[in-house]
Amino acid sequence: MEQLKFAVLGAGAGGQTMAAVLSSGGYSVKLYDNDREKIARLNELGKITVTGKFACEGFPQLVTADIAAAVADVDVIMVTTTTDAHREIANLCAPYLRDGQIFLLNPGHVGGALEVRHIIREVHGCRADVVIGETGDLMYACRTAEVGQTFQSGVKNKVEVATIPAGDVKRVMEALGPVFPNLTAAKNILETGFEGGGAMLHPIPSLMNITNTDMGQGYDYYMEGITPSVARLVSACDAERLRVCRALGLEVPSLVKTLQKIYGLEQEDLYDLLQHNNAYRGLKSPMNLKHRFLVEDTVCGLVPLSSIGRMLGVETPVMDAFIEISSIVCGRDFRKEGRTAEKLGLAGKTLEEIYELIS
Amino acid sequence: MEQLKFAVLGAGAGGQTMAAVLSSGGYSVKLYDNDREKIARLNELGKITVTGKFACEGFPQLVTADIAAAVADVDVIMVTTTTDAHREIANLCAPYLRDGQIFLLNPGHVGGALEVRHIIREVHGCRADVVIGETGDLMYACRTAEVGQTFQSGVKNKVEVATIPAGDVKRVMEALGPVFPNLTAAKNILETGFEGGGAMLHPIPSLMNITNTDMGQGYDYYMEGITPSVARLVSACDAERLRVCRALGLEVPSLVKTLQKIYGLEQEDLYDLLQHNNAYRGLKSPMNLKHRFLVEDTVCGLVPLSSIGRMLGVETPVMDAFIEISSIVCGRDFRKEGRTAEKLGLAGKTLEEIYELIS
Repeated sequence: MEQLKFAVLGAGAGGQTMAAVLSSGGYSVKLYDNDREKIARLNELGKITVTGKFACEGFPQLVTADIAAAVADVDVIMVTTTTDAHREIANLCAPYLRDGQIFLLNPGHVGGALEVRHIIREVHGCRADVVIGETGDLMYACRTAEVGQTFQSGVKNKVEVATIPAGDVKRVMEALGPVFPNLTAAKNILETGFEGGGAMLHPIPSLMNITNTDMGQGYDYYMEGITPSVARLVSACDAERLRVCRALGLEVPSLVKTLQKIYGLEQEDLYDLLQHNNAYRGLKSPMNLKHRFLVEDTVCGLVPLSSIGRMLGVETPVMDAFIEISSIVCGRDFRKEGRTAEKLGLAGKTLEEIYELIS
Repeated sequence: MEQLKFAVLGAGAGGQTMAAVLSSGGYSVKLYDNDREKIARLNELGKITVTGKFACEGFPQLVTADIAAAVADVDVIMVTTTTDAHREIANLCAPYLRDGQIFLLNPGHVGGALEVRHIIREVHGCRADVVIGETGDLMYACRTAEVGQTFQSGVKNKVEVATIPAGDVKRVMEALGPVFPNLTAAKNILETGFEGGGAMLHPIPSLMNITNTDMGQGYDYYMEGITPSVARLVSACDAERLRVCRALGLEVPSLVKTLQKIYGLEQEDLYDLLQHNNAYRGLKSPMNLKHRFLVEDTVCGLVPLSSIGRMLGVETPVMDAFIEISSIVCGRDFRKEGRTAEKLGLAGKTLEEIYELIS
């Protein structure tokens, strides 16, 4: 079997790490980003160095800001941008997609695969036989301090992947399973997109501590940022998420249950549990109003949950409150920017029709 | 003319000051509070001492927790409780009201006179010829450190008063004008209840700094508590207030214009203006979740504005956001507790019918 050829779109920590890991493993890789300065810097360096758990060094055969060049003649398009850029990436890629390609969001956040499918299939009318999917989590736990150098802090044992339609996941597993042994097939994109509580732990605490951010004062994100009142707000928001999921026919674990499982903790109260989670100690707070905790987790977390909730008759006043506050604080209209049911191609659909679309 | 007899209901700083001022001026006064410990302590002391601008000492002829005794045989019932207690006070008093009495809220906050009128007239069906009204502000700027001692920090040049129906204000001015020279007749209760921006400056900053309150950390309320992001939220909330007022046929000044006028400042930006307002320097922050900035200004400020807005087709997403957050943080249902259009006797009324009621 011929070696797979990859395009990695988005040269953040995750994209640089993936490009380095794959190219050091002998795969053909092209790395795209819209930040021309970063592209120039990477080409100047000529190498990407990964330190940490799996140290390696590699460099893509092409590092470019030209999307057509990036996705031409590749088998797999790995999207490693922040999830609020999926929309733009899908619009950029749609004209160039061709039969047999895999277009995979890493990760999709809430409704990522739905959003890009809608853009590719409905907005651009692309009929190429492309597999469209998303993972439930980042492939690598990593961060970057400067361009060309990333630190891989951990390996995820299991990263779920799902596609639309759901049956296409077999094609992903056949192609990518040997490359990424932690990939696990999920039943459908509801499992990869709606089970995580990430959006619960980010916008609310970031907003409830915005006076510190305004004044340039950092704080220990979970330990100082989530006081009992903030934990109550996060829990109320999570309860709304569970109701939206239930309306989607999905029984998902609460944020508390998820954290208990991941971190081996037993506290039933969210505040108490977070205070006992040493893995959360010392994490940095957002220092500006463009931080992903504020922007991405509102646009691709709270907005789709609230919008799908509204469509299915589930009220989400806490989510709505923080979408509003986030919009005013950041001076943007996140409900307009965000993943509404319409943008996910779900507007006006019954639950049956939603399942028909994703199954 | 016979000397007026007063009942003062609510023995906080304002009520104790009023009771002392009136009794030291030779008026018959009865002071009511539902806090029996406080009543016992006052009776033990046998005097109320007012220091500050207008120092005086006096004691009511009766200090009691018995509402029937308090309001029997008085000409004027001055309600000096926090405004979220107006509902209870009106329910307690309604059975005992009689022809010729004046029932005056000091102040009414948003819709106070409407709320008590509805309770007295519609819920209790009281037909006694009672004048029902409210002031637009506290009669005295005062505070208390311990029971029986109040400090009067300032005199208000002008305190507006209005009644329902509006024409009754003449009777208030005739009776009380000589006693309180700062009283000024307003056109109607929209002027006394909807012109102030007090509810704008309290719940939002208090909630956006709740992590400090949770941790027992005080902060300089306006100087540290209202950062640029918080000021943007307050301004967005104030814009909603102006839209609700406009829907009520009322052109009111913005919070910024009001503050510019009161404090002789020129800054157009709320954050900038507050930072330059020395009168706001060093003011204390709420130290618990029962503080009036959180409870009273939500229940009697944001809720009626939001509820009337909804009735008149004006959206108030910022107010709604903070009613929701306040409810969760305080573990209460402020929309249920609060002054909804229904509780104000306005539900289902057209603008014309509202004016018919209040004119």
